[in-house]
Amino acid sequence: MPKISKEAFQTLIEEQVPLATLFGIHTEAIGKGTATLRMHYNPSLIRPGGTIAGPALMAVADVALYAVVQGLIGQVEMAVTTNLTINFLRKPSQNDIVAEARILKLGKRLAVGEVTLFTVGEAEPVAHVTGTYSIPPR
Amino acid sequence: MPKISKEAFQTLIEEQVPLATLFGIHTEAIGKGTATLRMHYNPSLIRPGGTIAGPALMAVADVALYAVVQGLIGQVEMAVTTNLTINFLRKPSQNDIVAEARILKLGKRLAVGEVTLFTVGEAEPVAHVTGTYSIPPR
Amino acid sequence: MPKISKEAFQTLIEEQVPLATLFGIHTEAIGKGTATLRMHYNPSLIRPGGTIAGPALMAVADVALYAVVQGLIGQVEMAVTTNLTINFLRKPSQNDIVAEARILKLGKRLAVGEVTLFTVGEAEPVAHVTGTYSIPPR
Amino acid sequence: MPKISKEAFQTLIEEQVPLATLFGIHTEAIGKGTATLRMHYNPSLIRPGGTIAGPALMAVADVALYAVVQGLIGQVEMAVTTNLTINFLRKPSQNDIVAEARILKLGKRLAVGEVTLFTVGEAEPVAHVTGTYSIPPR
Repeated sequence: MPKISKEAFQTLIEEQVPLATLFGIHTEAIGKGTATLRMHYNPSLIRPGGTIAGPALMAVADVALYAVVQGLIGQVEMAVTTNLTINFLRKPSQNDIVAEARILKLGKRLAVGEVTLFTVGEAEPVAHVTGTYSIPPR
Repeated sequence: MPKISKEAFQTLIEEQVPLATLFGIHTEAIGKGTATLRMHYNPSLIRPGGTIAGPALMAVADVALYAVVQGLIGQVEMAVTTNLTINFLRKPSQNDIVAEARILKLGKRLAVGEVTLFTVGEAEPVAHVTGTYSIPPR
Repeated sequence: MPKISKEAFQTLIEEQVPLATLFGIHTEAIGKGTATLRMHYNPSLIRPGGTIAGPALMAVADVALYAVVQGLIGQVEMAVTTNLTINFLRKPSQNDIVAEARILKLGKRLAVGEVTLFTVGEAEPVAHVTGTYSIPPR
Repeated sequence: MPKISKEAFQTLIEEQVPLATLFGIHTEAIGKGTATLRMHYNPSLIRPGGTIAGPALMAVADVALYAVVQGLIGQVEMAVTTNLTINFLRKPSQNDIVAEARILKLGKRLAVGEVTLFTVGEAEPVAHVTGTYSIPPR
């Protein structure tokens, strides 16, 4: 069992991460070391060329890693991202984005994970993210 | 002279990058291979812990690199980020963020730059970004 | 069929990449968008703490991505790395390292891949790499 | 005064980091939050195209960050890299490489720095690196 339910995590981000609501980010599943989030398409996410802005993809990936970490260690608000690398792979179409995140390593002080981002219904990823969260002393 | 004025770049992002407006991003200067942008603080930028959400910092950095690239090659809408790495250095306070961007290498196909992000009025950076833009054939 | 055999790729690196020989890098397999390389342990790879030096892990990962790219587009010597991000996950023991690489996106101008590095015989990865190769015009 | 002299650091890497000797890495200066290292050119550093192999550039950058960290906190062998991102900017010629490293943030648990790499005598950098070291509890 993950240490936070998808409902509790969704409530947390709705209450404490206004960007998640602005971006239409919804928690679909939290597993043991995994999380799936969806970002509902809306026109405020676009950039020149009619595609989804990179920072919106970074946002859903970052929140997805936050979900993975909280699923593993429980609700720790002060777990913070220490770094994140995103590779943009394909131009996303104007559609929902699904973020599939999984843990690569959970240590005492750092958690590293990766996220693959897809346009819903398409097989090839639009972006790939690796990120590190710092875990506060407990 | 940069190939796009700060006013023209600001108009571009206001018309074509809705996130830039949502995030209160304002173009302060574009030079030859440099750009300075400011993100005006507003409460929708926060995350748990009362600090500014990482994706908002990524957004202003990404737009700042876009300004640098357009200052060098002119208005090319389809210049797109191919990758971006952010290191979070210090917890930003609830205040405006200034992004100082500069080019590291302008090639025919790729432009690489770095951005240092500060809380306005503070000497130590809150984050550091490197990113690559792909430049379409001309 | 990959566009370069493992034997031809091994010959190439032995002739043209002296570091690969210094590091004991051996090509085990090249598939369609994948490659598996092994770095044979030798004492010159260590760093303080009795573990394998980070740059040796970066080297085998970089060469593994080179194998993936050559497997997809054929022998193109001037395909060059444009950037690489490595996350160190666990302390490798003094043993061979296996690098499992796969393509994330093959474009006309850029190829992006990821590599997961293991100590031979262990299930948990010791490092994770993403990297981009620039493909010369053909 | 830095907490390790350039001579002591050079001795450390010669005794404990065989790769540094293989690569001809020499410590030129360690300051307060800075370090300058040189990698002497030798033919084992090349890659196809007659340029210096990326992993050699990564190696000197990684060791330069290690020098910065030890200059700030003293000789701590188990400070280890947690991640590193390199952007390759220009093709280095067959000549010595100079690595100029500086700290971006020294925290209790993590140190983040950046390194700019030059071919000796040339003004434009050949590569740019950011990296994070984990500092063991003291």
